[in-house]
Amino acid sequence: MTPAQLSVTFFLQMFIILAVCRVVGWAARRIGQPQVVGEMIAGVLLGPSVIGLLGLTGLPAEWVAAAARSQQALFPPESLKTLYVGAQLGAGLYMFLVGVEFKTDLFASRLRSAMAVSLSGMLVPFLLGVGLALWFIKVPGLFSEKARTFEACLFLGAAMAITAFPMLARIIYERNLTGTSLGALALAAGAIDDATAWCVLAIVLATFGGGAAIAVKAIVGGILYAVFMLTLGRRLLLRLGSATESAGQITPPILAVTLMLFMLGAWAMDAVGIHAVFGGFLLGVAMPRGLFAREIQKQLEPFAVVFLLPMFFTYSGLNTRLDLVNSWPMALVALAALAAACLGKGVACWAAARATGEDNRTAMAVGTLMNARGLMELIILNIGLQKGVILPGLFSVMVVMAVVTTLMATPLFELVYGRHARKSGSFGMTKAGE
Amino acid sequence: MTPAQLSVTFFLQMFIILAVCRVVGWAARRIGQPQVVGEMIAGVLLGPSVIGLLGLTGLPAEWVAAAARSQQALFPPESLKTLYVGAQLGAGLYMFLVGVEFKTDLFASRLRSAMAVSLSGMLVPFLLGVGLALWFIKVPGLFSEKARTFEACLFLGAAMAITAFPMLARIIYERNLTGTSLGALALAAGAIDDATAWCVLAIVLATFGGGAAIAVKAIVGGILYAVFMLTLGRRLLLRLGSATESAGQITPPILAVTLMLFMLGAWAMDAVGIHAVFGGFLLGVAMPRGLFAREIQKQLEPFAVVFLLPMFFTYSGLNTRLDLVNSWPMALVALAALAAACLGKGVACWAAARATGEDNRTAMAVGTLMNARGLMELIILNIGLQKGVILPGLFSVMVVMAVVTTLMATPLFELVYGRHARKSGSFGMTKAGE
Repeated sequence: MTPAQLSVTFFLQMFIILAVCRVVGWAARRIGQPQVVGEMIAGVLLGPSVIGLLGLTGLPAEWVAAAARSQQALFPPESLKTLYVGAQLGAGLYMFLVGVEFKTDLFASRLRSAMAVSLSGMLVPFLLGVGLALWFIKVPGLFSEKARTFEACLFLGAAMAITAFPMLARIIYERNLTGTSLGALALAAGAIDDATAWCVLAIVLATFGGGAAIAVKAIVGGILYAVFMLTLGRRLLLRLGSATESAGQITPPILAVTLMLFMLGAWAMDAVGIHAVFGGFLLGVAMPRGLFAREIQKQLEPFAVVFLLPMFFTYSGLNTRLDLVNSWPMALVALAALAAACLGKGVACWAAARATGEDNRTAMAVGTLMNARGLMELIILNIGLQKGVILPGLFSVMVVMAVVTTLMATPLFELVYGRHARKSGSFGMTKAGE
Repeated sequence: MTPAQLSVTFFLQMFIILAVCRVVGWAARRIGQPQVVGEMIAGVLLGPSVIGLLGLTGLPAEWVAAAARSQQALFPPESLKTLYVGAQLGAGLYMFLVGVEFKTDLFASRLRSAMAVSLSGMLVPFLLGVGLALWFIKVPGLFSEKARTFEACLFLGAAMAITAFPMLARIIYERNLTGTSLGALALAAGAIDDATAWCVLAIVLATFGGGAAIAVKAIVGGILYAVFMLTLGRRLLLRLGSATESAGQITPPILAVTLMLFMLGAWAMDAVGIHAVFGGFLLGVAMPRGLFAREIQKQLEPFAVVFLLPMFFTYSGLNTRLDLVNSWPMALVALAALAAACLGKGVACWAAARATGEDNRTAMAVGTLMNARGLMELIILNIGLQKGVILPGLFSVMVVMAVVTTLMATPLFELVYGRHARKSGSFGMTKAGE
């Protein structure tokens, strides 16, 4: 394809991607689900899963073939490279914005129960993930042959332990729960869990698929980057904050410098063999708070969330093949993954919160919120697939787990907490249009 | 290259592109030039011109070869496709935002002199462009063999007649000249000229390189799109305006619908054989004014101007080969193009303004502002090169013309108008950071 043909294809693709994401997102919001659930499903709908499943239903073969042809015409192989770059940029900028919102002062307020909840919400799913990995590695089509046993264990452990921290935070903020014990507890525990799970993933990626020299480069590079960002980098970045304060806004030069640093961080973490999203996330954590943080969100979030993230959901959906979950053994694998996810995260967090003295409603709400995996899980899974740790079969099973745990969160939260909170008046309104 | 390699390259490229654009843009602003001049030059610096010129200087061949290798390592051929798609998106969104700012009510206030200035500022450069085309078409390496004489004439005429309308508008707004006779005259004349030049370009593209059927498709498609957008489309789009008013802001769904319409318009104009930027521009003109227009600028302009446009400048610079202007005949071609551009636009607009009764300072200021070609010229030239109307030689000559006329504008304007206006106090301040 010539560049001109690619760009024509790109405009049409983006129209359809945005349209499907919006329509499914709108339908999701109609039934009380967040937009992100809709977009996760929209991505799967745009991919080969639907056509694969149609093929299993016994519809006339030529109908299925026609559907497959139009899907392939919309997403010719060469155009996927542009989509991939846009998806990486979207996921990286999203993680950067998550980092900018990340508040380390949350930990202080409810330290004891937050530590208990986050530890059990991390250890239990991690151990269950390790257990599953020891089983799954013997099932063909799940882990790649290159993946050694301890890498498979670490990867599935990390993938089980992740929480949809940004979604959890949004539910807390939107319902005005930040000041409540539930809000403080869930935000602190979610943040600790996610940070730890990403560290474990970094270790997997650092050791994976290369010799000792490559692992050392990745580990040393990652640690140097993290230490630099959180110490000297944070102090150097304060100048961006004061420049913003004195201009009263983020001027084009400040935005350009921020984007340059993002590109450099993403490139550096990609180049040492970890992943661009770490570069973005750590840079975001190190960024100055206050006016800068609020304004950079305003300037980058609309384009990143409305335009770039749908590219990520679509790329992820194009890799999802639900038709691979077409046998009893695979269905069993999917059920086991889902059960381990809910038991390990939801139930364990509830138990830890109860054990440290939270009341039952708060404990159940914490468990529900921590259980949602959302976009964060998709990011981890796509990294695992791209680096060749997992195969499309396990990828698809885990996408189902991510979608189902995310779908469960809002209605369960409403059931165990929302009804009562609304009655007692301790509950804000959900923002319109989100 | 795998998608993962492409995305690593992309992050590094973007870091360097943003850094070079910012550094050269900063240097340009230090000497009183606008940011856009710096970015036009930055794009050329990132391209093969510098290395080509180094090769002509007699430096050791291995140094030049090393510079060429690092330039090629940074921009491997496959990565240019992603850069191209980003550049098209940037140019399209930029033209969309130009359309959103486009005010048709400007024409009314100074109709007589505006018509005179815009007509002569269009006809004279157009005729000079036609004259040059009749000469250039005989010089090898300027026009492609596919280009018929009337197409070459129309293309060079349109390319000569274009004005950097957005830059002109920014100078007027930033210096608080909107209410002055100069402001009203320059804005109206610039808008009319640009709209007409784009129409001529659309005709060239519609007729170029295909049989009658293709030309009919392009012309009918373009007219239908324009008529639909400016009548029924404009009325349908009012709903976006009222949705914005009632929400008090542009919500994610409103932004998503706007971007979807942009993608559809860009795709449609590309698909019928004109160009994506027309789709964006006409959609922008048809968009509702008021809160919607202000807010969509706020949400899209930072990312489009700070992040996407540098991709366009770089892609354009990668196509620019100043080393092709290395012989006396080519130098003569470049001088003739530059002289025709300044005579046809600057001098003709001054004369028309004088003839309709404007004072000499206002007339000279109008001529100076209309003479700058800026980014709009680069957009036209890149379309001509991509569609195969012109060859790299003429492209490079015209890039020089665009840079020189843009460079001239600010100091000349200061000389003929700014000094006096500042003395008499009828002059605002330039915005910081732009």
